[in-house]
Amino acid sequence: MASALLTDLYQLTMLQAYLDEGMDETATFELFVRRLPPERNFLVAAGIEQALDFLETLAFSGDELQWLQRQGGFSQRLLDYLKAFRFTGDVHAMAEGTVCFAEEPILRVTAPLPQAQFVESRLLNIVHFQTLIASKAARVVLAAPGKLLVDFGMRRAHGAEAALFAARASYMAGFSGTATAEAGHRFGIPLYGTMAHSFVQAHDSEVDAFKAFARARPRRPTLLVDTYDTEAAVERIVALAPLLAREGITIGGVRLDSGDLAVHGKAVRALLDRGGLGALQIFASGNLDERRIAEVLAAGAPIDGFGVGTSLDTSSDVPALDAVYKLQSYAGTARRKRSEGKATWPGIKQVCRQHDREGRVSHDRVQLDAEGCDGVTLLRPCMMGGRRTAPAPTLEQSRAYCAAQLGALPDGLRRLSTAAQPYRVEISESLRALAREVDAMTP
Amino acid sequence: MASALLTDLYQLTMLQAYLDEGMDETATFELFVRRLPPERNFLVAAGIEQALDFLETLAFSGDELQWLQRQGGFSQRLLDYLKAFRFTGDVHAMAEGTVCFAEEPILRVTAPLPQAQFVESRLLNIVHFQTLIASKAARVVLAAPGKLLVDFGMRRAHGAEAALFAARASYMAGFSGTATAEAGHRFGIPLYGTMAHSFVQAHDSEVDAFKAFARARPRRPTLLVDTYDTEAAVERIVALAPLLAREGITIGGVRLDSGDLAVHGKAVRALLDRGGLGALQIFASGNLDERRIAEVLAAGAPIDGFGVGTSLDTSSDVPALDAVYKLQSYAGTARRKRSEGKATWPGIKQVCRQHDREGRVSHDRVQLDAEGCDGVTLLRPCMMGGRRTAPAPTLEQSRAYCAAQLGALPDGLRRLSTAAQPYRVEISESLRALAREVDAMTP
Repeated sequence: MASALLTDLYQLTMLQAYLDEGMDETATFELFVRRLPPERNFLVAAGIEQALDFLETLAFSGDELQWLQRQGGFSQRLLDYLKAFRFTGDVHAMAEGTVCFAEEPILRVTAPLPQAQFVESRLLNIVHFQTLIASKAARVVLAAPGKLLVDFGMRRAHGAEAALFAARASYMAGFSGTATAEAGHRFGIPLYGTMAHSFVQAHDSEVDAFKAFARARPRRPTLLVDTYDTEAAVERIVALAPLLAREGITIGGVRLDSGDLAVHGKAVRALLDRGGLGALQIFASGNLDERRIAEVLAAGAPIDGFGVGTSLDTSSDVPALDAVYKLQSYAGTARRKRSEGKATWPGIKQVCRQHDREGRVSHDRVQLDAEGCDGVTLLRPCMMGGRRTAPAPTLEQSRAYCAAQLGALPDGLRRLSTAAQPYRVEISESLRALAREVDAMTP
Repeated sequence: MASALLTDLYQLTMLQAYLDEGMDETATFELFVRRLPPERNFLVAAGIEQALDFLETLAFSGDELQWLQRQGGFSQRLLDYLKAFRFTGDVHAMAEGTVCFAEEPILRVTAPLPQAQFVESRLLNIVHFQTLIASKAARVVLAAPGKLLVDFGMRRAHGAEAALFAARASYMAGFSGTATAEAGHRFGIPLYGTMAHSFVQAHDSEVDAFKAFARARPRRPTLLVDTYDTEAAVERIVALAPLLAREGITIGGVRLDSGDLAVHGKAVRALLDRGGLGALQIFASGNLDERRIAEVLAAGAPIDGFGVGTSLDTSSDVPALDAVYKLQSYAGTARRKRSEGKATWPGIKQVCRQHDREGRVSHDRVQLDAEGCDGVTLLRPCMMGGRRTAPAPTLEQSRAYCAAQLGALPDGLRRLSTAAQPYRVEISESLRALAREVDAMTP
C-alpha cells in the first residue's frame, strides 16, 4: 500500500489542531458524489475493498515520522500520536458493485475526529477512481452485450496504480479481463493478449511473424492483421492455417486496430468464412469507447470482441467525478457546510432503495440512519473498531453482484444517451428538517 | 518502483517468440505523440527521470517468476531469461522540461529486440502521464504569471502514483508546490496547505476554528472563509487579527473556495484593506483550470494564488495524449507501420530545433539521426549499457530549464486558445525518401 504521507498536508495540520484542542469525540464523515455528469445515468460503487485495506493497514513508518519532524512546525504531541496511529473506527459502505447516484453516501466513516478527518484524502483517491472506472466500464458492458471485452489501457492509464485499479474496476463491472499482467498477478483477473505491430515489423515478412507468434503461443493465438494491409494479411492467414493445423495449432482469431471497423470487419469475416475459417473470431481495438462500439455493432460489424484502452482507463469523457468526503456529525451534533453551490445534507444517513414488481430499481430515498426503510438499505456495516466485520468478498462475487445490479436498471438508464427521466433520489422530510435546524444553530 | 509484471501480457508472449527465433539483434524504438489535440499548442516532456529509474532497476522477483510459471504457456527458456533480465541498452531522450511537438521522438531506446520491446508498456505509462500533466500545468503557469500556484489534486488524481507524478510534473512545469505531503517527502517539492471546511464545521463557532488553526500552525496560516458566509468570515478575521497578533501570530491569508471569485475577491480585499490587513493574501480554489483563472484575473480579481486540483491532476480537458512507442529499426534495417491513419516515419531520428534572433523557437525538423543539424539537437544520450551516463538533474534544475523553454515560446503558442499558426515541424527529405524505400521493400 501507499505511504501514510499520501495525504494532503492540511490533514496533518488539522490533526495537530484537534490534538491541541482535545477534540477527539466521535465524528461521522460521508463520501459521496455531489452530482452526476450528463454523460452518466448512474454510477457503480467500487474500490471499497481497497479503501478498507487502507484503513486496516494505515501506519506511519519511522522514516516518515523522521521526515515529518525535519519539516518543523509539527509538535512532539503530533509525532507521538502518529507513531501510534491506527484506524480504530467503524465503516458502513455500499457493497462493491452497487449501482448508485448523486447525493448518496457510498461510504461512511465513524471514528474519533482526528482519525476520521485524516483518512479523507486517500479514501477519496481510492474510491473516486475505481467508482469512476467501474461506472465507465458498465457503459461499455451495456453497449456490447455478449461480447468479449478486454481492458487494454495500461500504457495510457495515469500511472501504475491507475492501470491496476482500472483493470480491477472494469472486470468487476463486467469486462472479460485485462491485458495488464500485474492485474492478473495481484487480483486474479483473466488475462488476454495478442501481438503488437512492432512484432510484425521486426520480421522480414508478415507471414513469418504470424508463424513465429503462433508457435510461441499455440493456444488459439490472435494475430494482428492491420500492420500493412488488413485484407492481404487475412488472405495470408487463410493460406497459413492448414500448415499450422498440421503442427496442432488452431488460430483463435484476428485483431483489427485501424480503419473503418465495420467495413474491414465484414470483409475479413467474408475472407475467413470463404477460407474455411468460420470459427476464427474477430477482435477489434483502436481508440474505442462505448459510443464507437455501439456504432460499429449497429452497422452490423461481425466483431466478437473489443479491446478498450485509453477511454476506459482514463474515463476520457468524464475523467473525474464530483466526489467529496464531508463531516456530517461531530460529538452527537449534525453538521453541514453551506458554501455557495456546495451545501451538503447534514446528519448520519442511509440510502433506502425501492424496486418495482419486476425487480427493477424504481427510486431511492436518502434519509437519516434512524429512519425506517421498507426497501433495501444500501449502506452496510463492514468495519468495526478498525477491523473488517467479514472477509472481503471475492472479485468474482462482486462481479456477479454488479451484473445483477446492472440487470435491475430500468431501460432508460441503461442507454448511452442521457436519460430523459433521470433516476429519482428523494431527500427525506426528516433530513430536510434537520438541515433547517442545523442552519438555525450555526453562526 | 512497480512490479516488472506491470506490462501488457503480449510483451511476455512476444518476448518468448523472439527468444525461440533467436531474434536478439539491435532494435530502436521511439516514444512520441502522434498528434497534438486542439487544446494544446505544445507539450512539455516529463517523466524521463522516472523512465530511466525504471530501466535501471527493472528485474523480476522470485514471486513474480513463480506466478508466471503457474500460468502455464511460458517456456522454461523464457523464465530463465526473465530471471536474469536486466536492461542493458542505450537511451537518448529530450531533457526533462523540453517543449516538444507531435511526431518528435521524446525518448529513443536502442537495445536487443527482446529488451527494447518488453519495456514499452511501462515506459509509455510513465512518460505519457507526466508529459500530459506537465503540458497542462504549463498552460496554468502561462495563464497566471507571478501567482502562487499549488497542486491540490491528490484526492481525485487517478490513484497514488498519479497524485505523486502530477505533483512532480506540475512543479517541474512552474507550479509553486503541492498539497500532497508524500510528494514533499519523495521529491522535495515545497508543500502548501490551508484548512478544510470540516475543520470549521467541527467547531461550535467559526472564530473558534480560526483561532485553533492559527495556534496549531502559527507560521502565517491561511484561513478558509467560505464555509458559511464568506464576507462574514472575513469580518471575523479582521476582529481576530489583533488578538492573534498579541500571541505573535500573523495571519498569512484567506482562501475562497466557492461562489464568484471575482466578486468575492474584490469584496474580501476591500474588507481586509479597510481592516488594516493589507498584507493578507487571497488564495482561491474550487474547480479551477487555466481558462477559469484567466477569466478571474481578466475580471480584475485581486487574487494572489490559486489551488488547482482535479483539472490539473487529470488533465481534464485532455485526459490522454496519442503517445506511442514504435519500432523504427531492427538489425540495421529501418521499419515502419502503414496502418490506416497510423503510419509512422521509419529510421533512427533526431529533432533539430531552430531559434530566431531573439532566441525564440522558430521551427523544428525531424530528421535522420545521421543528418547534420545547424540548430539544437533535442535528443541527448542519457543511458549507455543500461546505466545513466550522468547523474539525474535535480528537479530544481529541470524546473529552471522548463521555465527557460516556456520563455522561448512565441506568443501565439503561449496563449490558451488554439494557435492560429501551429508550430512548424518539418519532416526532412531524407526521412521521406527512407519511408518510400522501406515501403518498396515491405510486403
